[in-house]
Amino acid sequence: MTARILDFETVDLRFPTSRELDGSDATNPAPDYSAAYLVLRTDHPRVPEGHGFTFTIGRGNELVVAAVEVVARRVRGMPVEEITADLGGFARHLAADSQLRWLGPDKGVLHLATAAVVNAVWDLAAKLADRPVWKLLADMAPDRIVDLVDWRYLRDELSPAAALDLLRRAEPGRAERERRVRESGYPAYTTSAGWLGYDDAKLRRRCRDAVAAGWDSVKLKVGADLDDDRRRCRIAREELGPHRRLMIDANQALGVAEAIRWHRGLAEHDVHWFEEPTSPDDVLGHAAIQRAIAPTRVATGEHAHNAVMFKQFLQAEAIGVCQLDACRLAGVNEAVAVLLLAAARGVPVCPHAGGVGLCELVQHLSIFDYVAVSGSMDGRVVEYVDHLHEHFADPVRLRGPRYLPPDAPGYSARILPESLRRFRFPDGPEWAGR
Amino acid sequence: MTARILDFETVDLRFPTSRELDGSDATNPAPDYSAAYLVLRTDHPRVPEGHGFTFTIGRGNELVVAAVEVVARRVRGMPVEEITADLGGFARHLAADSQLRWLGPDKGVLHLATAAVVNAVWDLAAKLADRPVWKLLADMAPDRIVDLVDWRYLRDELSPAAALDLLRRAEPGRAERERRVRESGYPAYTTSAGWLGYDDAKLRRRCRDAVAAGWDSVKLKVGADLDDDRRRCRIAREELGPHRRLMIDANQALGVAEAIRWHRGLAEHDVHWFEEPTSPDDVLGHAAIQRAIAPTRVATGEHAHNAVMFKQFLQAEAIGVCQLDACRLAGVNEAVAVLLLAAARGVPVCPHAGGVGLCELVQHLSIFDYVAVSGSMDGRVVEYVDHLHEHFADPVRLRGPRYLPPDAPGYSARILPESLRRFRFPDGPEWAGR
Repeated sequence: MTARILDFETVDLRFPTSRELDGSDATNPAPDYSAAYLVLRTDHPRVPEGHGFTFTIGRGNELVVAAVEVVARRVRGMPVEEITADLGGFARHLAADSQLRWLGPDKGVLHLATAAVVNAVWDLAAKLADRPVWKLLADMAPDRIVDLVDWRYLRDELSPAAALDLLRRAEPGRAERERRVRESGYPAYTTSAGWLGYDDAKLRRRCRDAVAAGWDSVKLKVGADLDDDRRRCRIAREELGPHRRLMIDANQALGVAEAIRWHRGLAEHDVHWFEEPTSPDDVLGHAAIQRAIAPTRVATGEHAHNAVMFKQFLQAEAIGVCQLDACRLAGVNEAVAVLLLAAARGVPVCPHAGGVGLCELVQHLSIFDYVAVSGSMDGRVVEYVDHLHEHFADPVRLRGPRYLPPDAPGYSARILPESLRRFRFPDGPEWAGR
Repeated sequence: MTARILDFETVDLRFPTSRELDGSDATNPAPDYSAAYLVLRTDHPRVPEGHGFTFTIGRGNELVVAAVEVVARRVRGMPVEEITADLGGFARHLAADSQLRWLGPDKGVLHLATAAVVNAVWDLAAKLADRPVWKLLADMAPDRIVDLVDWRYLRDELSPAAALDLLRRAEPGRAERERRVRESGYPAYTTSAGWLGYDDAKLRRRCRDAVAAGWDSVKLKVGADLDDDRRRCRIAREELGPHRRLMIDANQALGVAEAIRWHRGLAEHDVHWFEEPTSPDDVLGHAAIQRAIAPTRVATGEHAHNAVMFKQFLQAEAIGVCQLDACRLAGVNEAVAVLLLAAARGVPVCPHAGGVGLCELVQHLSIFDYVAVSGSMDGRVVEYVDHLHEHFADPVRLRGPRYLPPDAPGYSARILPESLRRFRFPDGPEWAGR
């Protein structure tokens, strides 16, 4: 009997995070962290469900859910093992509807929705293989990894042959690195200290708590008012001391010249990286900023919508830190493409996380990167935000400031039924009463 | 009494163009030309309705309609005259929902939807002013035109002061150029001859017909098979003779090196421009292609999703022809931004048209560009495709290969009620029976 994807279910899931100003920044003053959540149902006797989602910040999540349904219809009826035997071909099939492509291509609502479907299929594939996604990836032969990627627009930067070569060079060390990451985890940094909506006292308290909890890298939101940011950076630096790392994040609030001026105003506080200084589409703008603020690194990627954008950020030497997002990109396949591009340039990947379940997903990507792609943790940290993990069946586990590799089969994407019920929008009890 | 936008109506409108392979190209083999159509209803005694739309090619149009409804809800209840007195502030307001912004920013389904709403509001504004949109724009003082634009991410390329200066320099000649364009129209070229799905005999016949009809610029779709394209270019050149212009369009089908090779294979047929050679996101890729194929010009823009992308195409000297789209950009305001950026660089704007009603819209933008911005028709041609004009209340009028300026107040965006009824998807009679 051939097992098939029989059907699917979607949930418009929203958490009312704007009530506490958790997650507030210069561009997103009041987000309600949300997920367009997908369950693929199969008739496979051992793996009845695959779980995936994409992340949004509230209004419009219903549009993404509607788009997930459009994309998920393309997998209904497909044989599970045929998909999982050719995950590259599957992802290319999913992107190949020429009429839908007009709505992007490869960006916006439809690309976010594609991420949810691709991620759910990887969850299925990993469960079938009885291992976590990072381990499924890290056990693949180099040529199979290369085949996950859609190379059409990337070959001028990295050929499939060069990618294969890179993966083969990393192959002998895989077992040793897997042992090491299982033993001591993968480094993280925290954003929970410095949301823009926090007042000075709360900022100071959160920085102090972060130091006490062992964090050595802390990120602060900036970009609304330079004088405020000077004061907030001073407070953070006072609490962090001279040796811990302070990163700043303007969440796209600034123009190019303005961003350079902003950095100049804050540089005395020893800024490790400057994240999202300007429009996420502005490759040349980021390059100008990077030239002006070096050796501070420009970081971006949570809104870089596809591998073609990352290709250019790397080609233009516009970023020193590559912050791919597990849901903004079209799921695992496109994330693998970006890991390969970044490794070929020697640029560290420090994934965007937080939101709903992004920490749960990106840990798989970074651990795979360490074991089988870049082979390095130097300069690499995964973002950590201490929100909403309690809603996940397999939440991230940290030991001090380090992620421990997930053990459970799948992509750590399953949200608890009770959370789906309570936070379903607009009819769940957390919303219906308001 | 203050007149307000009371409510709105949307229509998912689809024409079954895939049945005849009209509109077929290397990336879009079988499009069903569609519109997410919007009617804004007011209680203004003289201007009860504003009409706007965005263009798609079929599946997924329902997602864009849903997004139009999300965006249109933001204008419900607004006073008509307050909007039309500050069209720049209005457009910035529309883009300022921080939760919705996460779904882009400024790209994909939500940006397409924003175009429909902004265009409908411009239709209202022009009807209130009792003139066509091009004339409303061309009568605006330079400082009001500058204020239409969201400058946040553009100042590193063009300052508002420099834009003002450019517009003021063009001001003395406005009346004379308006007289001229009313007298002799605005130049056009045709794409109707060379769709990829046409066989050789039909291609030859359509080229011959185009020459007989007076066209001096003809565009051919390429990019599926180089040998086929060699043969098709030869046929087209035979029919066009040595002096008429032949443009080619690969609709994003190629990688960077592949595009350069493709051009080399076809250059003997004297190609005037090479359109959409590769991914529309690949600014640096287009720049590499432009360096390789000069003096042939690289043309792109129908999928360039916002002004930040055009800024970069211009900064990188990646394009010699700027093909903005009236619906891919967020309506008139963002199109004005791109006209200013292109004029400052001296790059001709030759808008993308065809589809559903794009010719009807872009004629306004190009005529405004001539009268009040670039002040020139040199190297400028508006695309013309002879499909679907019969569905419009104020269809384009051509005299030979030239657009005549529209006279009717508004943005020429109104679709006839009978067409809305027949082609409404999925319940209109053209679809329900299939």
